[in-house]
Amino acid sequence: MQGVDAAWLPDGAFRQVGTRRTLVRGTGPLVETVRHEVDRARARFGGGVAGDGDADLVLELTGDDGGEAFTYERRDGRTTVTASGGPGLLHGFFHVVRLGKAAFEGSCARQSHRPGLALRMLDHWDNVAVHPVMGQVERGYAGGSLFWADGRARGELERVRAYARLLASCGINAVAVNNVNVHAVEARLLTDRIGEVAAIAAQFRAYGIRTHLSVTFAAPVLLGGLATADPLDPKVRAWWAEATARVYAAIPDFGGYVVKADSEGQPGPFAYGRTHAEGANMLAAALEPHGGTVHWRAFVYDHRQDWRDRTTDRARAAYDHFVPLDGEFAPNAVLQVKHGPMDFQVREPVSPLIGAMPGTRLAVELQATQEYTGQQRHVCWLGPMWSEVLRFRPEGAAVAELADALVAVSNVGDDPFWTGHPLAQANLYTVGRLAWQPEADPAAILDEWIRLTFPAPAAAGVRSVMQESWRTYEKYTAPLGVGFMVQPGHHYGPSVDGYEYSPWGTYHFADRDGVGVDRSAATGTGYAAQYGPSWAEVYESPRTCPDELLLFFHHVPYGHVLHSGKTVIQHIYDTHFEGVEEVEKARTVWASLAGLVDDGCHARVAERYEEQLRGAREWRDQVNSYFFRKSGAPDAHGRRIH
Amino acid sequence: MQGVDAAWLPDGAFRQVGTRRTLVRGTGPLVETVRHEVDRARARFGGGVAGDGDADLVLELTGDDGGEAFTYERRDGRTTVTASGGPGLLHGFFHVVRLGKAAFEGSCARQSHRPGLALRMLDHWDNVAVHPVMGQVERGYAGGSLFWADGRARGELERVRAYARLLASCGINAVAVNNVNVHAVEARLLTDRIGEVAAIAAQFRAYGIRTHLSVTFAAPVLLGGLATADPLDPKVRAWWAEATARVYAAIPDFGGYVVKADSEGQPGPFAYGRTHAEGANMLAAALEPHGGTVHWRAFVYDHRQDWRDRTTDRARAAYDHFVPLDGEFAPNAVLQVKHGPMDFQVREPVSPLIGAMPGTRLAVELQATQEYTGQQRHVCWLGPMWSEVLRFRPEGAAVAELADALVAVSNVGDDPFWTGHPLAQANLYTVGRLAWQPEADPAAILDEWIRLTFPAPAAAGVRSVMQESWRTYEKYTAPLGVGFMVQPGHHYGPSVDGYEYSPWGTYHFADRDGVGVDRSAATGTGYAAQYGPSWAEVYESPRTCPDELLLFFHHVPYGHVLHSGKTVIQHIYDTHFEGVEEVEKARTVWASLAGLVDDGCHARVAERYEEQLRGAREWRDQVNSYFFRKSGAPDAHGRRIH
Repeated sequence: MQGVDAAWLPDGAFRQVGTRRTLVRGTGPLVETVRHEVDRARARFGGGVAGDGDADLVLELTGDDGGEAFTYERRDGRTTVTASGGPGLLHGFFHVVRLGKAAFEGSCARQSHRPGLALRMLDHWDNVAVHPVMGQVERGYAGGSLFWADGRARGELERVRAYARLLASCGINAVAVNNVNVHAVEARLLTDRIGEVAAIAAQFRAYGIRTHLSVTFAAPVLLGGLATADPLDPKVRAWWAEATARVYAAIPDFGGYVVKADSEGQPGPFAYGRTHAEGANMLAAALEPHGGTVHWRAFVYDHRQDWRDRTTDRARAAYDHFVPLDGEFAPNAVLQVKHGPMDFQVREPVSPLIGAMPGTRLAVELQATQEYTGQQRHVCWLGPMWSEVLRFRPEGAAVAELADALVAVSNVGDDPFWTGHPLAQANLYTVGRLAWQPEADPAAILDEWIRLTFPAPAAAGVRSVMQESWRTYEKYTAPLGVGFMVQPGHHYGPSVDGYEYSPWGTYHFADRDGVGVDRSAATGTGYAAQYGPSWAEVYESPRTCPDELLLFFHHVPYGHVLHSGKTVIQHIYDTHFEGVEEVEKARTVWASLAGLVDDGCHARVAERYEEQLRGAREWRDQVNSYFFRKSGAPDAHGRRIH
Repeated sequence: MQGVDAAWLPDGAFRQVGTRRTLVRGTGPLVETVRHEVDRARARFGGGVAGDGDADLVLELTGDDGGEAFTYERRDGRTTVTASGGPGLLHGFFHVVRLGKAAFEGSCARQSHRPGLALRMLDHWDNVAVHPVMGQVERGYAGGSLFWADGRARGELERVRAYARLLASCGINAVAVNNVNVHAVEARLLTDRIGEVAAIAAQFRAYGIRTHLSVTFAAPVLLGGLATADPLDPKVRAWWAEATARVYAAIPDFGGYVVKADSEGQPGPFAYGRTHAEGANMLAAALEPHGGTVHWRAFVYDHRQDWRDRTTDRARAAYDHFVPLDGEFAPNAVLQVKHGPMDFQVREPVSPLIGAMPGTRLAVELQATQEYTGQQRHVCWLGPMWSEVLRFRPEGAAVAELADALVAVSNVGDDPFWTGHPLAQANLYTVGRLAWQPEADPAAILDEWIRLTFPAPAAAGVRSVMQESWRTYEKYTAPLGVGFMVQPGHHYGPSVDGYEYSPWGTYHFADRDGVGVDRSAATGTGYAAQYGPSWAEVYESPRTCPDELLLFFHHVPYGHVLHSGKTVIQHIYDTHFEGVEEVEKARTVWASLAGLVDDGCHARVAERYEEQLRGAREWRDQVNSYFFRKSGAPDAHGRRIH
């Protein structure tokens, strides 16, 4: 698309397919999409149309089950992809694209590919009308919304189509097109403005992606004129059934609803004395006849906590609210749980709710938009963190095995580079690829993304600035899992005490002697005991708790010696100096890539490195000064602390 | 006026005049205003028209010098006010109103009254167009603007007239009608929108008040299409001369300009390598032929300071910038200096710039709008603080003797009570009365305001909740002159470290050992040496520095013993507990006034006391916790610190 970055699908990514003779077999809308892709590649690179006998590549739809799986093999100089469903054929096609030259070399025994997680979803926190505080895209760092502008649908459907193509090519199969905080204008997408959603859905459909909608629990009151939104009230249930039927009339493959209820001010079932299962099941019942699903977010906690009260622990809230409801949710209700117990910090333990509700379908929610991880002004590739989450084994099975769905909050906007920071595209790509193949080595996904996106001579440089970028970001921000320490409201930049005396439940309790939150069962909030026995034991004691989560679980003296052999205070100083040095190095490496990558991309990243370095130094100096002033402990290496 | 509180001019305030036989002698617009006031009072209370022989009260204009002085005497059962200028007669009339019954009792030898300060001004920080961050009124806590709404003049001239009357009755004689931060829309008030200013000026004129305008230094570029705003460029000077002539064509008694230049992002002469005297004098030259004055603000400092740099001291900035320019300012240029060196904190020393420029005309700027003093949700009557400032003797003469003008940032908006918090009206009243009579006992002014405003049975209660309210506010907020500790941006509520690592130059440097800013000459920033020798000596040493300014001038250990005999840390704890207790008591006293004061007023104040108490407790707990965590010092009385 003109004026918009090609991301990981530049023309060059189609060279191998485009120079070959390809045969596409089958019928149906997604076969047409594949055929169109092949034609486009051929037109660009001069490959031929193939008959049965002379094809280099055969892409064949063998059934009509609508499935996503495909097979891949290569023998006798021919590469063959088969699928029994249109989406499978599309995924198989992009698999060939990703393989590039390797897809047409040597031979390969028949492989079966199927997604690790059935639902691989992006949630857009896009507002239709500009919100006075949160703007057009809540926590968006890439310009405006692709879908909405100033209260209206943008109608730039070509851009939506290009977006759908990018998403499909990395494995995404569902998109929620509006913010989970549903304000007055957005509420109406469900009813009289469903046509605007349908226009977007048509673009996504062509790439095998289903469209979802965030709805407000109060819709029957706000939109239906009813006196109540009580989920057990027959009139309310009838209203939702009718509203949902109208949605499906407009969008036959509609995916379902996303709901943030009783959370940070959003309405919910608590107002009617009902449980969250009763709330979710009402919507599930409305969706069930049409094959839809309700995603019910578990992000329920007291956001008007008294900081003086050390017995209340926000980290406990989701578990405490939802575990008693296990088994009560309908089969087409999915509980959508943030990967950590707090809120997308650079380091959190995996939420103890994951694995604790065997009788409930589970979606794990990640945040691709870098709210707390540099806001797409800092390079912070989150692949390693997400991979750790998906491989974590609460008690037996891995998170990826326990979950039905992986959901990420989108980091995309109308920015020409899609994600503001061009290197943040890697986070979007990684979400899709990890959701398809959760056991994949994230480094391999990064390499795959680099290979598709950048010219080969730039690969080593790009890899070197990205592969450790998450750990670098962690080093210069909040230490040892303690979290937050950000400026209130916008969450960018350091403010060590910014949330310390707030009602948000996000404290570090630093005093002159030590720092951290005691979440042990023995002496703290008891959060550690929400885990199954083996993890509960690991987290319970500072002796066994992993260093990187120590201050999440324990309040320790500054002189406490970590497993690393360093004291907590020296670790704080050292990591903060190191983090800045690593950014300085990365900036230098990036500078050396001038001429090797697209000029516009190079300039944009270079400019953001200036800001990242400024920001990293600010973090270093504020965090170090704060803890030096509190602890009085000198730096072992005598470096300047202000 | 219907639907708007009468403030200190309820009908009852005119009872004494209204029941008497009054003779008004003279001609001219202000005599007409007095006559109208008398007629209105008579109509309400049935007093008679008087001839020479039978008058109880004679109000006589004896000349046409336009002066503000008047004489007052009472003998043979007749009260006589004379003035040689219309404004003087109006002030004399309101003097009689304020005296009430006492004006018609006994006898009184002839007194001459004249204002202590020639110019007594309110600066409105009102924006014409709503500013995206600062709103309609910058730092306004009383609703919208009286003058402007959503980009246009409100046109509610009756309300402006009622406002002019209130201001004249307490002695104000000048008003600047727009914000010193002059944005694009506001800039045009100077040129094509001057008619809107003229309509407002007509209302003020009827009460002897001259209208002023804040202008942007960049006007010749922004509005005139010139390539420069260089104050020495002849084309620029000609542009200002012409623009000013057009202003006077529209408003013949126009007061002059207010300018914030090279300050917090506003343009100024520095951009052209010119001095502030050269900048101010250019505007003075344009105003001079018409009798106007330029108010040039001295609020110039580096608002992008590096918090790591302890040698830079914002408190020094105004002195350092302006003292070298003494003697260079034109006779009709007035340097407008904030009363303290920082920014309207609850406690600051008097600015060392005051008294340091004997060859420059001086306006002292106060802040009636309670930006840092509770934002008109907390009761904080600032009379005692302002009185201390005006009586302060830098070296010899008092501040009030050194100054030509007293300027206060207005606390008024379109709120029905004018000031949001009804008791904040007292601050407005006190500004005018202190400017007229700077040596007055502020307690007497408070009593006067109470007597005019409230029924007699409520007087003792109102007095008790107000007289110590400034010291109460100081107790529960930032201690010992250290300042700030507010939430960034909006400045409401505590955040002890909120500005500690910011670029704003507002630090307390608290660490585990002590707190405060070393501004001594011997070991600190040298700020203390900006004072004349006697004060420099007092402030230089912690042994002689007054307790209430100790942390402004010195960094001391928590165990440092104050003149009061308490340690710094115990003082912090004690004052914070006391402050909250005092608010609790005041709230109880106010509750007891139900039925004694107007119901609407009582309810509004009662509601604000709930917020004040909540806020005071939050201040207490955050400040105490912060210093307890840092110092580790236990409270001597074993009270709960979180």
